[in-house]
Amino acid sequence: MLPELPGLGRSDIAAAARRIAGDIRRTPVLELPGWGCLKLEQLQLAGSFKPRGAFNRMRAAGVGSAGVIAASGGNHGAAVAAAAQALGVAAEIFVPEIAAEAKRERIRGFGARLVVGGAAYDEARQASEARAAETGALIVHAYDQPEVLAGQGTLALEWEAQAPDLTHLLIAVGGGGLLGGIAAWHVAGSVTLVAVEPEGCPCLHAALGAGRPVPAPVGGVAADSLGARQIGALMFPLAARLRAEGRLQPVLVADGAIREAQAALWRNARIVAEPGGAAALAALLSGAFVPPPGARVGVLICGANTDPAMVA
Amino acid sequence: MLPELPGLGRSDIAAAARRIAGDIRRTPVLELPGWGCLKLEQLQLAGSFKPRGAFNRMRAAGVGSAGVIAASGGNHGAAVAAAAQALGVAAEIFVPEIAAEAKRERIRGFGARLVVGGAAYDEARQASEARAAETGALIVHAYDQPEVLAGQGTLALEWEAQAPDLTHLLIAVGGGGLLGGIAAWHVAGSVTLVAVEPEGCPCLHAALGAGRPVPAPVGGVAADSLGARQIGALMFPLAARLRAEGRLQPVLVADGAIREAQAALWRNARIVAEPGGAAALAALLSGAFVPPPGARVGVLICGANTDPAMVA
Repeated sequence: MLPELPGLGRSDIAAAARRIAGDIRRTPVLELPGWGCLKLEQLQLAGSFKPRGAFNRMRAAGVGSAGVIAASGGNHGAAVAAAAQALGVAAEIFVPEIAAEAKRERIRGFGARLVVGGAAYDEARQASEARAAETGALIVHAYDQPEVLAGQGTLALEWEAQAPDLTHLLIAVGGGGLLGGIAAWHVAGSVTLVAVEPEGCPCLHAALGAGRPVPAPVGGVAADSLGARQIGALMFPLAARLRAEGRLQPVLVADGAIREAQAALWRNARIVAEPGGAAALAALLSGAFVPPPGARVGVLICGANTDPAMVA
Repeated sequence: MLPELPGLGRSDIAAAARRIAGDIRRTPVLELPGWGCLKLEQLQLAGSFKPRGAFNRMRAAGVGSAGVIAASGGNHGAAVAAAAQALGVAAEIFVPEIAAEAKRERIRGFGARLVVGGAAYDEARQASEARAAETGALIVHAYDQPEVLAGQGTLALEWEAQAPDLTHLLIAVGGGGLLGGIAAWHVAGSVTLVAVEPEGCPCLHAALGAGRPVPAPVGGVAADSLGARQIGALMFPLAARLRAEGRLQPVLVADGAIREAQAALWRNARIVAEPGGAAALAALLSGAFVPPPGARVGVLICGANTDPAMVA
């Protein structure tokens, strides 16, 4: 059994779940033959899992008169904007130039000030931190703050209550905030986490290979949601230890498999997912991950901030 | 308390639920502030509630070597085709010329023979019945057979188990098979059924006004799923008696309200619904139905066989 991370034990996640219960949606699950138990988190407020961490960070840390600030490929920015609107505080969101127009619209639609800063996420993050030093706004990090990780971990708590018999959870990985929160909840159990990255943005793979977070390429169809340059420092030790225990299985998927998973979700279940939101299912449908005999698989559909015309 | 219809009592619906349990999906519900409890039946196999009735009819009546035949604006046809494919029997589906291309593709995709017959549903139905007399195929009616109604009624049984506290259920009405099955389940309770029709295809309204099923116009954006010429003869007495008891409230919605409900579902919850699938929500959002104080509202999203590009 692994020790819990400071501020990121199961009790912290349970506290986060109570803290944000009135803010977020309890998203449903759907059983599909051959696909397992899908957790439909794309139905969450603001179209992705991100409000869990955003609300928890803002409610736990408290927001002053300078409001909040965040950098994001888009989904985290939309979540922070939605949370700020709900809590009645100002939000400033920095997005990189690759952020999809659908995501920019969402951010503006929730009343936040949108700033385009830099070619990719990392430049936008640096710009946002410089700005926060000027304004005193509360930084809500996309994936590397304990309160954000604990907030994302509430998804695992909720899913476990809905489907307690799952043995393998397929989770898409960008900066690792979602995987880190889920890993923190399942740190002591027997669940295996299948960590799915696009071949075009493999920062967890790179880090597991190097033994520490290192810069990795950012590209491909899911870059606007999964395109972090480097895996989160906070969650990496937990991922590395679960990997050593054989309870974290890293998997890469090709862009074509992601597009096919998007199309299959629409064809088979009238579900719209963005590329990053369909990546976990892509691992299953493409055979990149093959469930062992007796496995009960859960697949997380984690976002839908895309043009729906793209899925048909 | 109303007497139950022959073959359509609660015990018949419960038997149908057991009969088709391995065939259909248990679709989830989603709570949304201000909107109530959404039943996400558009996630059902073949993209609408229709497989419930189709499987129940086919399993209860048995299918011979001549296979099955049906007429349909599209969703029922897709459901019969999917059920036939699952049960390994042949299916011939008659669609009217107004059937949307997305629905025709679904029918062909499930391996059925597609026949375009007549301008609207009623002509396609006549053509299918003439053909059935030649071939001996089992007719699976879109909305006017007891086994079909009992199958659709399983949705109410399932929804009640998921959300037992609902006081008002908003249901879109085409030929009345879905409403009839739901009414049969709730015949003895205190639930109020809000029966929502587009202004362009108001066959239940026309029948309630006339005191019996009468021909009504068929038009507007939802005609391809809700455009029945005349309300089902089997369910009408039940609807009329619930209306007299004040437990069925008929509501009309404009095409613009339906389009706005489709857009709102996408914007607020990343749900795609076809026009007929969004009609029930349109009644709530447009104010055509105003919940009384203390009401706990359920809204049925009943289909999503449309081009997803239309919702954004």
